[in-house]
Amino acid sequence: MTKINQHFMQLPGNYLFSEVARRVEAFSREHPDRDLLRLGIGDVTRPLAPAVTAAMHRAVDEMGSAESFRGYGPEQGYAFLREAVARWDYQTRGTAISPEEIFISDGAKSDCGNIGDIFGVDNRAAVCDPVYPVYADTSAMAGRAGRYDLRRGRWDRLIYLPCTAENGFLPALPEEPADLIYLCFPNNPTGAAAGRDYLKGWVDYANSRGAVILYDSAYEAFITAPDIPHSIFEIDGARTCAIEFRSFSKTAGFTGTRCAYTVVPQALERDGVSLHRLWRRRQATKFNGVSYVVQRGAEAVYTPQGQTQIQENIRFYQENARTIRKGLAAAGLTAWGGENAPYVWAKTPGDMGSWDFFDLLLRQAGVVVTPGAGFGPGGEGYIRLTAFGSAGDTARAMERIRAALT
Amino acid sequence: MTKINQHFMQLPGNYLFSEVARRVEAFSREHPDRDLLRLGIGDVTRPLAPAVTAAMHRAVDEMGSAESFRGYGPEQGYAFLREAVARWDYQTRGTAISPEEIFISDGAKSDCGNIGDIFGVDNRAAVCDPVYPVYADTSAMAGRAGRYDLRRGRWDRLIYLPCTAENGFLPALPEEPADLIYLCFPNNPTGAAAGRDYLKGWVDYANSRGAVILYDSAYEAFITAPDIPHSIFEIDGARTCAIEFRSFSKTAGFTGTRCAYTVVPQALERDGVSLHRLWRRRQATKFNGVSYVVQRGAEAVYTPQGQTQIQENIRFYQENARTIRKGLAAAGLTAWGGENAPYVWAKTPGDMGSWDFFDLLLRQAGVVVTPGAGFGPGGEGYIRLTAFGSAGDTARAMERIRAALT
Repeated sequence: MTKINQHFMQLPGNYLFSEVARRVEAFSREHPDRDLLRLGIGDVTRPLAPAVTAAMHRAVDEMGSAESFRGYGPEQGYAFLREAVARWDYQTRGTAISPEEIFISDGAKSDCGNIGDIFGVDNRAAVCDPVYPVYADTSAMAGRAGRYDLRRGRWDRLIYLPCTAENGFLPALPEEPADLIYLCFPNNPTGAAAGRDYLKGWVDYANSRGAVILYDSAYEAFITAPDIPHSIFEIDGARTCAIEFRSFSKTAGFTGTRCAYTVVPQALERDGVSLHRLWRRRQATKFNGVSYVVQRGAEAVYTPQGQTQIQENIRFYQENARTIRKGLAAAGLTAWGGENAPYVWAKTPGDMGSWDFFDLLLRQAGVVVTPGAGFGPGGEGYIRLTAFGSAGDTARAMERIRAALT
Repeated sequence: MTKINQHFMQLPGNYLFSEVARRVEAFSREHPDRDLLRLGIGDVTRPLAPAVTAAMHRAVDEMGSAESFRGYGPEQGYAFLREAVARWDYQTRGTAISPEEIFISDGAKSDCGNIGDIFGVDNRAAVCDPVYPVYADTSAMAGRAGRYDLRRGRWDRLIYLPCTAENGFLPALPEEPADLIYLCFPNNPTGAAAGRDYLKGWVDYANSRGAVILYDSAYEAFITAPDIPHSIFEIDGARTCAIEFRSFSKTAGFTGTRCAYTVVPQALERDGVSLHRLWRRRQATKFNGVSYVVQRGAEAVYTPQGQTQIQENIRFYQENARTIRKGLAAAGLTAWGGENAPYVWAKTPGDMGSWDFFDLLLRQAGVVVTPGAGFGPGGEGYIRLTAFGSAGDTARAMERIRAALT
C-alpha cells in the first residue's frame, strides 16, 4: 500500500493569495459595478523589453531551422548566459563569481524549494516572520518544519526571526542554533534592505557555526542606495557559507517568461562535501535545463540596449513606490520599504487586524492589498502594497485610500 | 552545523552519458581525423515544426506589448494547453481525462523526479532492469532506495523487474510487494512496447495492493501498431492507480524548448488523500509554471498543420529505426525494439560485455552507441541505438558496423 508524504497534511489550508482572490471575487459578485485597483500580488505589468523580444525571435528562428536547431542544452544552463550573469551581475561589481558557479533555472521559487533536496531532513531552518511562504512551506514538505500549530500560526521545528518596526525589519541572530537560514533582501514582504555590516553579522554567524545562508535577492534591481549590497557575495566570507537565488522575474519582467539562477560557490562545503557538486547532481538528475529561446532572451537583458530598456521599467516601478509612500503618508499611515524595494509595508490604523484592514480598503476604497498576517503572525497589523501596477492606477488607489481614511 | 543529504553520497559516481562522452573525447583526441557517427544519446535533430515556431513568434510579440503582456501564469499550466492535451491526447482516443487532471511542466524528467515529493520515504519502489537512470537515482536521493551495492550495481531497497529477451523485455509482476512502480512504455532503453492485456495485469496488481504506477509514456508518438495503448489510462481501472508522464520532447522536437505534462486523475487516492490535490499543492509551492511562449508553441502541436508537420518528423525517425534494424541484421546482430519506439536494443556478439562492444564500435566503426550496462546490470550484453540522427548518418553508421563485424 502506497503511503503519502504525511508532512503535506500539516500544511495550512488556504494559500494566502487564494484567500485574497476568494474575498475579492465575493465582493465583486456583490458589487459588480465597483472597479477595483489591485496593489496586492507582486506581478509585473510592463511588457518585455524590445531587446529581449528581438533575441527571442532570433532564437525561435534558429529552432525552426535544421542547421541551427538545438536539442537538449546543458542542465546547468548555456555558457553564454552563465558568462553574462557572472560578468555583469558579479564581476563588474567586484564580486568574484565564476560562470561555473551559476545554475540557470526556470524560477527562484523552484530553486528556493528544490534546494532542500541536498540537505539532511534533521537540519533546523530559520525563517523571518513575516516571511515569503515558500521557504516555510517547502521546509515543511520535506519534514524539516515539524508540526504546525494552527493557533499560533507557527511550525514547531522552524526558528522564527522576528522582523518588527523596532528592529527596522532586520531580524537579530537567533538564540537557538540554526543550520539553514533563509534571508531575503530587499525583503518580501517588508521592503527592508540590508546594509553591509548587518549582512556581515549573518555571514560571521554562519561561518562560525557551519550554517548555510539561503539568500534570496530577487529584488536587488530595485536597490537605489549605493551602500546596500546587491549580493550576499559582496560580503567577505560569504563564499564559504551562502547560496544565492536571483531571478529575471522582477528585474526584466520575466514572471511569465521564466528564468532565474542560483549561485553555489565552489568553495562551499559541509560534512566535507561540496554543496556545488551536490546541487549539480540534483539538477542533472531532476531537471533538464531552461528553454533555449528563454535563455537567449535573458542574455539580451545584459546588452546595452537591454540594460537601458529594463532600467526604464525599474524606474517606472520605483516611481510607483514613491507614489505609494506619499499617498500612505497623506492618508495618515506609517509605512516602510519602497525605497530599495518594490514593496511598501504599512501599519494598519490603530490596532486593526490586517484582514480587517484588507476588508476595509476593499469595501471603502475598492483597493486590493495583501494582509500582512498572510505572511505569518509577525505580519499581523500590517499590509503590503506593491509598486508593479500602472502609474495611473497606483495614483488613483492612493487617492481613494486617502479619501476613505481621512 | 548544516548536514547534507547523505543519500546523495550513495549515488554511483559516473553518470552514464558522462562516461560515454569521456571515452568519445579520449578517442577523438587520439584520432582527430576520424569522423564519428553518433547513435548514442536520445536527442532529436529535426527542427521545430513551422506551426510551432509561428505560434512562438506570435507569443513573443504578445509579451512585448503592454496590452497583451502576460505575467505569472497558472502553476498548473494555461487552460488553452490543458484543454488541447485533454482533447487530442485523451478524449479523441476515448479516454476520459479532463483538463483539470493535467499539469503542464518543463519536462518529464523533472516530473518523474519531483513526483517522489508527495510520497512517504518508506514506500518500496520497483524499477525495470535495465532502466532509465532517473527513476532509480531520484528514488535514491529521497532515501527510498536504501544502500547502493557497487559490486552488484543495485540498490538494496529497490525492487528490480528483470527485462530479458526471454520475457520479451516485458517484466513479470514482482514477488516482493511494491508500492511505487515505475513503468516506461514504449520502453527506454529496450524499445519494447506493452500490449493491453499486459498493462491490465499491472493495473489489477496496483489496484489490488493499493500501489501506484508511475507510467512514463514519453515515446507514445512512435507507436505504429493499432493494438498498443498510447496511455495507461486506456486500461480499465488505471484512474485509481496510475500517474502518467508525457512530453513534447520526442513527439514534437521540444528537447531544447522544454514542455511536458503529467496526468494525475482526480479519482486517485492513497491513505484517504487525493494525490491530485497533493501534486497540485507541490507544484503551486515549488514551481511557477512554464513559459507562456513555450506553452503557445506546444498548443500549436495540436493544430492540423502542427499535426501534419510533426507526423512527418516522426515518420522520418521511424524510417531511421527501420534502417537500424535492417543494418543490425545484415551485420549478424540480434535486435529488438524500433518498431513502436525510437530505440533499438541489440545483443552484443558472443559473450562480449557492453562496454567492450561500445569500444569496439567506436574504434573499428567510428560509431557511438550506448552500452546497455549503463542502464543497470540487466543491460549487460546489450547496446542501445537511437533513431534520432539524420538519415544519411544512420545509413552510413549501419554500413560501417556491418563492415566492422563481417
